[in-house]
Amino acid sequence: MLVVQKFGGSSVADTDRVQAVADRIARAKRDGDDVVVVVSAMGKTTDQLIRQAHEISEIPPGREFDMLLTAGERISMALLAMAISERGLTARSFTGSQAGIITDASHGKARIIDITPGRITDAIHEGHVVIVAGFQGVSRDSKDVTTLGRGGSDTTAVALAAALEADLCEIYTDVDGVYTADPRIAPRAHKLDRVTHEEMLELAASGAKVLQVRSVEYARNHGVRIHVRSSFTFHEGTWVERDGTMEQAIISGVAHDTSEGKLVVRRVPDKPGVAAKIFSALADESINIDMIVQNVSDDGTTDISFTLPIADGPKAVQRLEELRADVGMEEVVLDEAVGKVSLVGAGMKTHPGVAAAMFQALSDADVNIEAISTSTIRVSVVVRQQDVETAVRAVHERFGLGDEVEAAFGEGEVHV
Amino acid sequence: MLVVQKFGGSSVADTDRVQAVADRIARAKRDGDDVVVVVSAMGKTTDQLIRQAHEISEIPPGREFDMLLTAGERISMALLAMAISERGLTARSFTGSQAGIITDASHGKARIIDITPGRITDAIHEGHVVIVAGFQGVSRDSKDVTTLGRGGSDTTAVALAAALEADLCEIYTDVDGVYTADPRIAPRAHKLDRVTHEEMLELAASGAKVLQVRSVEYARNHGVRIHVRSSFTFHEGTWVERDGTMEQAIISGVAHDTSEGKLVVRRVPDKPGVAAKIFSALADESINIDMIVQNVSDDGTTDISFTLPIADGPKAVQRLEELRADVGMEEVVLDEAVGKVSLVGAGMKTHPGVAAAMFQALSDADVNIEAISTSTIRVSVVVRQQDVETAVRAVHERFGLGDEVEAAFGEGEVHV
Repeated sequence: MLVVQKFGGSSVADTDRVQAVADRIARAKRDGDDVVVVVSAMGKTTDQLIRQAHEISEIPPGREFDMLLTAGERISMALLAMAISERGLTARSFTGSQAGIITDASHGKARIIDITPGRITDAIHEGHVVIVAGFQGVSRDSKDVTTLGRGGSDTTAVALAAALEADLCEIYTDVDGVYTADPRIAPRAHKLDRVTHEEMLELAASGAKVLQVRSVEYARNHGVRIHVRSSFTFHEGTWVERDGTMEQAIISGVAHDTSEGKLVVRRVPDKPGVAAKIFSALADESINIDMIVQNVSDDGTTDISFTLPIADGPKAVQRLEELRADVGMEEVVLDEAVGKVSLVGAGMKTHPGVAAAMFQALSDADVNIEAISTSTIRVSVVVRQQDVETAVRAVHERFGLGDEVEAAFGEGEVHV
Repeated sequence: MLVVQKFGGSSVADTDRVQAVADRIARAKRDGDDVVVVVSAMGKTTDQLIRQAHEISEIPPGREFDMLLTAGERISMALLAMAISERGLTARSFTGSQAGIITDASHGKARIIDITPGRITDAIHEGHVVIVAGFQGVSRDSKDVTTLGRGGSDTTAVALAAALEADLCEIYTDVDGVYTADPRIAPRAHKLDRVTHEEMLELAASGAKVLQVRSVEYARNHGVRIHVRSSFTFHEGTWVERDGTMEQAIISGVAHDTSEGKLVVRRVPDKPGVAAKIFSALADESINIDMIVQNVSDDGTTDISFTLPIADGPKAVQRLEELRADVGMEEVVLDEAVGKVSLVGAGMKTHPGVAAAMFQALSDADVNIEAISTSTIRVSVVVRQQDVETAVRAVHERFGLGDEVEAAFGEGEVHV
């Protein structure tokens, strides 16, 4: 069996942790699997490098910033290769470029456009444990080193698993799987044994931090089976797989996200082309818009609201103010004190009344809903930030997601 | 003018020093020069990485050790590029591999076999300051990352200057040039304005630490002009150039080296093939032998002595013991308490009596000579280690190398 194993920064935080990870890899290899490991930078390395860069430059050039940051995985992967060699196996580490992770040229948030894993497959056939630097690639045209952005190592792992036609992609993390809700908020939350790619995608997009959205998207598109599990135990984690013959639970979990703000553009003329102008301008700034809600009023104007990462708020406001003369809005209001609570479940599309039951649960808990957005397998609401925990608990209980077993979390996450 | 500037680890020890180096580079660029910068890892970075590796593995695999160490220059070059950008110029950093530094596959001490600097020349023509990681390359066949070994950044700089047909290679260091002797030992030592490649080669090989031997060899073979100067001042340093029309001083300087030990193989049969066996065995272990002296006795045996890096001593002894049955030696004795003192001067080949005068000076100072080795422009002696300083002063004085001006040293060196 060919397995891709991904270890994040907390799993290789120091040389002791590197040794423990090497033990686990060696065990898989000795059990007869071919193993390709994707590794992040050690613990705080990336933060240290960012701090050094900012001692020199407020806004460092993207190309050089990527060159700097990629030193992090270089260190962790070489140390991990050494630790594996100490266990009587041979290991070969490869940078993103050497591994054939070809990306576009968007430094800091490059997208993978191709994988040419010739050196990886050669190394596998020679019997080596292969270690690949997560988070990094090389741009197709300029041949410059690029990084994939936050959480990019998950995407590296899934993309490699797809390109190598691996049987399985194991994502090792500091929690033991995907939960029905954040156990710090809903203590009766329980671990899910399996979710579909679609559910995981909605959960990740709605704030569940265990997997990065892009990696799940990639896994869905390429049919990659993911096993999310703890690097501290050998327990089964959560399987993320195709929506096959398995019985659908109506609801799989409740996710929440307090990293976004809400921006309201008031009294925009209600005519064609206005929304296009607004969202094109924001796209030009590479601002990721999430929920969009438009309410038409009866005086020929409309309010357009949307959520976006808090960090992008000021830039969005500035860009929209520049459009004011052209578009004719009345005011732009940024509200950072909001939160999003989402209910996700592949079964909900065939079970009417899920949204209504969710809204009733929130009402019973005295939580006001400021905006609503739905997909076929998700209902999200925007609420006041201070109401988020209450809302998560209320929805979690309403749908009977509580379990007898209290959630068991790895030490890393609990103390964060 | 195209200038290659090399900055060592102490020149970029922290972000403040990186800023100072960026100022100097920006000044050269604004003065109209095209600048290619070769940079080492920051200060203690390499030592830290080595320590981490040894927490994991006593003898790490060479390929992975090189992968690890090359993270050091990656960090310094990216930070330096950012600092240059802050000064309104554009900079592009390149790893050894990206810069086309092609080497053999000897990890940890790779030799440059070709340079394909296409990306460098493109970047120069586009007007960028080009920054290249020192000390590293990529192996021709396996495409693995390699390092050139201790002081390899000097070699990177000179080799790039040759490949780019640069007008000049400036080596920035923490002293202000090449001295007639180490001023900490011979306080009247003075800075040399110019030396020939051959003299510099002998000085470097005899223990002068300001330039690495291989880099001087490369400069000599490719006719690269080197300017060794301080990164802390703007004073002229020492020019290292071809033996042109300039007047030859008889003597240029006295070098010393206490990093080597002496190994004596006693009572080896005096017959053909014995020396070949001994030195082939040591070459197989990649042990660099320096001075070799053989004294024939009259009983059909001979003693063979040679100097070698102290670190290689135990390995050499072990290897020779394995040969004992085959070769028939009596014993192998390692003596670490020796030192080498060398007198170097391009004029000495046409001035007889230099060696005799040197030996007389040592005798007058009561220093016993244990071995002698000469080239056309150098005389070296092995003495007791505790006699090295006395010997340097005696020889320095005897040849009138003292100067009225006391040697001025950069802070870095003086406090070491």
